[in-house]
Amino acid sequence: LPSKLPDVGTSIFSVMTQLAQEHGAINLAQGFPDYDPPRELLEALARHVLTPGHQQYAPMPGLLRLREAISQKTARLYGYAPNPDTEITVTSGATEALYAVMAAVVRPGDEVLLLEPAYDLYAPAVRLQGGVPVYVPLMPPGFRPDWDRVAAALSPRTRLVLINSPHNPTGAVLSAADLDALAGLLRNTDTLLLSDEVYEHMVFDGATHASVSAHPELRERAFVLSSFGKTYHATGWKVGYCLAPPALTAELRRVHQFITFSVSTPTQHALADVLPDTALYDGLPAFYQQKRDLLRELLAPTGFELLPSQGGYFQVADFSALAPGLDDVAFARRLTEQAGVAVVPLSAFYHNGHDDQLVRFCFAKQPTTLQAAAERLRQAE
Amino acid sequence: LPSKLPDVGTSIFSVMTQLAQEHGAINLAQGFPDYDPPRELLEALARHVLTPGHQQYAPMPGLLRLREAISQKTARLYGYAPNPDTEITVTSGATEALYAVMAAVVRPGDEVLLLEPAYDLYAPAVRLQGGVPVYVPLMPPGFRPDWDRVAAALSPRTRLVLINSPHNPTGAVLSAADLDALAGLLRNTDTLLLSDEVYEHMVFDGATHASVSAHPELRERAFVLSSFGKTYHATGWKVGYCLAPPALTAELRRVHQFITFSVSTPTQHALADVLPDTALYDGLPAFYQQKRDLLRELLAPTGFELLPSQGGYFQVADFSALAPGLDDVAFARRLTEQAGVAVVPLSAFYHNGHDDQLVRFCFAKQPTTLQAAAERLRQAE
Ligand SMILES: CSCCC(=O)C(=O)O
Ligand SMILES: CSCCC(=O)C(=O)O
Repeated sequence: LPSKLPDVGTSIFSVMTQLAQEHGAINLAQGFPDYDPPRELLEALARHVLTPGHQQYAPMPGLLRLREAISQKTARLYGYAPNPDTEITVTSGATEALYAVMAAVVRPGDEVLLLEPAYDLYAPAVRLQGGVPVYVPLMPPGFRPDWDRVAAALSPRTRLVLINSPHNPTGAVLSAADLDALAGLLRNTDTLLLSDEVYEHMVFDGATHASVSAHPELRERAFVLSSFGKTYHATGWKVGYCLAPPALTAELRRVHQFITFSVSTPTQHALADVLPDTALYDGLPAFYQQKRDLLRELLAPTGFELLPSQGGYFQVADFSALAPGLDDVAFARRLTEQAGVAVVPLSAFYHNGHDDQLVRFCFAKQPTTLQAAAERLRQAE
Repeated sequence: LPSKLPDVGTSIFSVMTQLAQEHGAINLAQGFPDYDPPRELLEALARHVLTPGHQQYAPMPGLLRLREAISQKTARLYGYAPNPDTEITVTSGATEALYAVMAAVVRPGDEVLLLEPAYDLYAPAVRLQGGVPVYVPLMPPGFRPDWDRVAAALSPRTRLVLINSPHNPTGAVLSAADLDALAGLLRNTDTLLLSDEVYEHMVFDGATHASVSAHPELRERAFVLSSFGKTYHATGWKVGYCLAPPALTAELRRVHQFITFSVSTPTQHALADVLPDTALYDGLPAFYQQKRDLLRELLAPTGFELLPSQGGYFQVADFSALAPGLDDVAFARRLTEQAGVAVVPLSAFYHNGHDDQLVRFCFAKQPTTLQAAAERLRQAE
């Protein structure tokens, strides 16, 4: 059987998590919290699981009451209330939303513009449709998009541009001016936009998240993704959603109904219960900034050079002073096996294995976990 | 935006469920139970939701303890213990498993052989890969495969043959001899098999389910799908699985990791808790046979002519005596709007709208629901 993705192996996140388990390493590789969802959310789910009649298929686009709550949240944060009937689809995590967008709009030969480093599923999801990823590098310092380079990479065959802010793996954040620049490039084209905003609630240092949902021009051509797993520390629940104008939502749902059809009914009820409690997400920037600051403080005395992290779950660090000349995969393995701290090498986010001697730490961890990891790193140096 | 599935609308199940809701009709259309999962399963899920550390990503192929329990169940029922590490993948319902198999092995131009009537997602899932569905009719009486016709439809481009037993919508069941015949046809070809066995526990009148997992020759080239939603009256939980030999599982997981990545962790834990309790599924044939028999008894005095139902959730009925000449979609609408009982027209399961004046009743309902529906039908006649 010839493989459709011959060069794609097990995702780096699974590989590093497994390596961490084998070596008893602290897992700062795969992006997930080591703390639980808010108590009221857990109790809401336990309640709905025991509620008669809540265990059968949800409607294909998602429970109406959850879509209504999503609309209200979007209106509150971004000044735009998407229509629950025609502009909101609940998905099996943002992963399914992303895959479904590709399946809905990318045809063989279509180009999809990706900014690198890029989350590891973007390119395979494009290629599985017969699409062609076109890579544009994010630029130093700070992994910024160079909009002139993006403009040069656009072509009449560009079906989709994919952006991700706050950015995984780099923690870079797009500004409203970035969105304006992109809007200028896409104006009068047929190119669509996919905006991966799963870390929307984790933006630091007083900045605000520039959502495509808040951009009247861009959102007319955009799929905007978010993730309840990230927002509620429940990555294992696998519920996300996609906002898009009616014509795009119609195409998304046409394929969503054949990819998963619908999403866990009791889980959707529980999320609908808590989503109106704005305190649960309004506190997230401060909560995560504290974690970022703690990790940076703990790593400051080590030989890692810390790059900026403006948002998200992740801190990128340069290890060149610690292991001159070593490739990042070898360094990540060595750190896992010998220091007992697992991280992700940034080359995993490049199609060509580009290696700047950088690794990614996940700081969505309890302070004691971050402290224990730092202690191990100090001892290993 | 040109659609990738221009001729595909909202699935017939969603359409009929919505129509039922609008008209206060009893919904015997969409296949789902109107009773709850076993109490011990609900309590297990509520418990795992409140268990610290069970809310983050499950491993991409599924929780190991659930895969082990699936292996044991398969060994007990079909005499073959698939390897949890290399032959079992947990998916977001059998729907995702089915879609992922197509995404993993069907390339543009590949043919996929479907027996019609066929579940409505098979053909779109093929077409979304650029594959070509090739339709072979199931034959009267009893919607049996004619293996000579299947043989004639096979070509060097046939990547996959799809079978489904117990069969949705007809309730037909394949025998071990059918599987032998199919094995003979596929011998010495590169054609793979996808066996949709989501109704494996619902086989009536003392027959046993002929699983591809029990067929040493066929299972070497097969993906076998099942659904916890069907087995545990929990269609809204969206957990299924796929068994396949290591080389096929490897390809399946390559795409599964990019389609949904993983499945609800607490739900997998709960299923792993109850799966060893064999009484929960050993009782299903009798439980569903009773429902089938009740529905048949209730419909006997009406003008519907009842076709055999050997397995699954469904009873097909011929309405030609009730509404001579009326097409099945119009009849299903009329029954929903005027009699207050929603059913599915069988033409929805044919690519060309083939219409034999047949409708499908779902009998996965409480006796009182079936009685109330029959009462409405009597009153409307
Ligand atoms: C789906 S596992 C990967 C989790 C994640 O988003 C990350 O580590 O980047
Ligand atoms: C996924 S909704 C359809 C449920 C079902 O299997 C059916 O009604 O045939």
